[in-house]
Amino acid sequence: MAVGTVLVTGGTGYIGSFTTLALLENGYDVVIVDSLLNSSQAAVDRIELICGKRPTFYQVDITDEAGLDNVFSKHPEIDSVIHFAALKAVGESGEIPLEYYRVNVGGSITLLRSMAKHNVPNIVFSSSATVYGDATRVPGMIPIPENCPIGPTNTYGHTKVMIETVITDHIEAERRKAKKAGKPFEQWNGALLRYFNPCGAHPSGIMGEDPQGVPYNLLPLLGKVATGERDKLLVFGDDYASKDGTAIRDYIHVLDLASGHLAALNYLREKKPGVKAWNLGSGRGSTVFEMIKAFSKVVGRDLPYQVVDRRHGDVLDLTANPALANKELNWKTKLTLEDACADLWRWVENNPKGYRQDPPAELLEKLKASKAAKN
Amino acid sequence: MAVGTVLVTGGTGYIGSFTTLALLENGYDVVIVDSLLNSSQAAVDRIELICGKRPTFYQVDITDEAGLDNVFSKHPEIDSVIHFAALKAVGESGEIPLEYYRVNVGGSITLLRSMAKHNVPNIVFSSSATVYGDATRVPGMIPIPENCPIGPTNTYGHTKVMIETVITDHIEAERRKAKKAGKPFEQWNGALLRYFNPCGAHPSGIMGEDPQGVPYNLLPLLGKVATGERDKLLVFGDDYASKDGTAIRDYIHVLDLASGHLAALNYLREKKPGVKAWNLGSGRGSTVFEMIKAFSKVVGRDLPYQVVDRRHGDVLDLTANPALANKELNWKTKLTLEDACADLWRWVENNPKGYRQDPPAELLEKLKASKAAKN
Repeated sequence: MAVGTVLVTGGTGYIGSFTTLALLENGYDVVIVDSLLNSSQAAVDRIELICGKRPTFYQVDITDEAGLDNVFSKHPEIDSVIHFAALKAVGESGEIPLEYYRVNVGGSITLLRSMAKHNVPNIVFSSSATVYGDATRVPGMIPIPENCPIGPTNTYGHTKVMIETVITDHIEAERRKAKKAGKPFEQWNGALLRYFNPCGAHPSGIMGEDPQGVPYNLLPLLGKVATGERDKLLVFGDDYASKDGTAIRDYIHVLDLASGHLAALNYLREKKPGVKAWNLGSGRGSTVFEMIKAFSKVVGRDLPYQVVDRRHGDVLDLTANPALANKELNWKTKLTLEDACADLWRWVENNPKGYRQDPPAELLEKLKASKAAKN
Repeated sequence: MAVGTVLVTGGTGYIGSFTTLALLENGYDVVIVDSLLNSSQAAVDRIELICGKRPTFYQVDITDEAGLDNVFSKHPEIDSVIHFAALKAVGESGEIPLEYYRVNVGGSITLLRSMAKHNVPNIVFSSSATVYGDATRVPGMIPIPENCPIGPTNTYGHTKVMIETVITDHIEAERRKAKKAGKPFEQWNGALLRYFNPCGAHPSGIMGEDPQGVPYNLLPLLGKVATGERDKLLVFGDDYASKDGTAIRDYIHVLDLASGHLAALNYLREKKPGVKAWNLGSGRGSTVFEMIKAFSKVVGRDLPYQVVDRRHGDVLDLTANPALANKELNWKTKLTLEDACADLWRWVENNPKGYRQDPPAELLEKLKASKAAKN
């Protein structure tokens, strides 16, 4: 029997698929809802190839209340939601903000309404370090603790802050209401996971990030330079106040991030703390130039880049202070930047068309052998 | 020919109806959309009785995008929106926050989407001083200027802040998009009107606040004590750091508030400033005890009250610094607290059932005579 059943919204996306894998590997059953707007249902097959278990999949958009109601009705065993589904391109969020507010904020309100109707009390929310904005504006806030003042500098970040607020107000109201009615109020809980820069892929080489359209983040872009799909990397600014002038980010391997979600969910279910925010990061900041060097080393040659102007909304340093999650969730990152670069390159090199092609037979053989060795 | 045509959402509500009246009296045509969830269509008749012009009315909820689209399609002459429609009970917002987020935030996103589709570029938004939260937490912020840090202490206030952010991001994105396309970008404008404590009624005695259910604000509650509908006023806390221990608010006559909306709309249409926030208040703070005294004087007898515990989320002092609106909008309050009390009492005393009864013949005669005298 399963430990519990979790609805994962956006479960075929990058972080959603790895979290689904981690949940299945740790005894949970998983139901995925995803619009497939920016992901592929093939992720479901890869998850099954790796762990031997298959999540249930529904193509449902989180703004579709009847669709969500239908899924919850069909699966009364769901007791928790991990909520990833969102539009996530920072640049685009400044071009079509209303669509970001409609999908991210409106969709989250719809999800919470449907959860409340079906009495599903736990939510783990995929927030972002973007909620802090430029943390260097406040003295003593690098590395960034959870009590760093909120101050996002773009629409994407605004949507994350708003959803954190909606979840907090809703869960607290449900607790007050249950308490007043003499019902168990502790069941209502929420985790706000503010994570830093997810990167990497599955070490098997058959599962990784497969966004539709142009990637926005550093490592996927470096991957495309390495495969020759792009002729060079654009470095947005080398005049920041860092050791080499490029911006500092806290890169976290997607496997570590997935285990952080699992740890937060377990914490909610066991400790019933109400609503809490945790940073998920390594605590180690790396510059863009350091990342180029690390990835070049894995690829085996220098990758070309060009320094251009700073990008609007970017900030100098987003490095986490993950002490709270280390302590309370008994969780910390285990994988290194080198792991992330090696895993990403294995994924990119072997799957030039991402999920639009079958995984290479050689990698599947290796996966089989490694699973056999484990058993 | 009309100066312009304005869609007023929530136009049968308290402030919405008085703003509609001010618009009609100043040469605008008005189209109202209102769900009638917390207001009466009779307000439309009263507006016509007073000014001789009738706004067009549609019963449409702002969360109904097709309904809004239909109204904009029928009225391509609409060039501006004044957006009042919202759930507005602070206490209730803490009990059913999701519904407040759905209607206030979701509804505003829907309204802006529909406006964008129909190329309606100006929005005047009914925000609130509640966005500042407890302004006494920051030194030097009483009276409160527009640059006082935002920090609402309840869900209602959170919805107002979110809507301000959505409007700002949307209008700025439309400006960038139009500029890039070589189109006139200046047409996209927004006013965020943060107002303090609206009170009073129309001096004719035939138009005033007529909420369904229990009133929440001080003066309407005092009105119900004066008519005997309530046996006493509850004063929430007399241990605040004010001269008499009761909380300080900036009461603004609804006629002044309506003229502030008109001034902001005219400013947007003439100066095309982008998005701007203005406080609408008198700049004069009054305590609860002072209000009881002022209203008792108008009624002609002492009104009973009882001091009880502070109410969660209430703050010591919300007095406006209205200097920016005074200067830029060339607007300031003209009516006194005594005017507000006298007008409110005339409304309450003569209309015990609010809009659920015809206005007294005597008041209608007086109104007719005063209109005749003016012409």
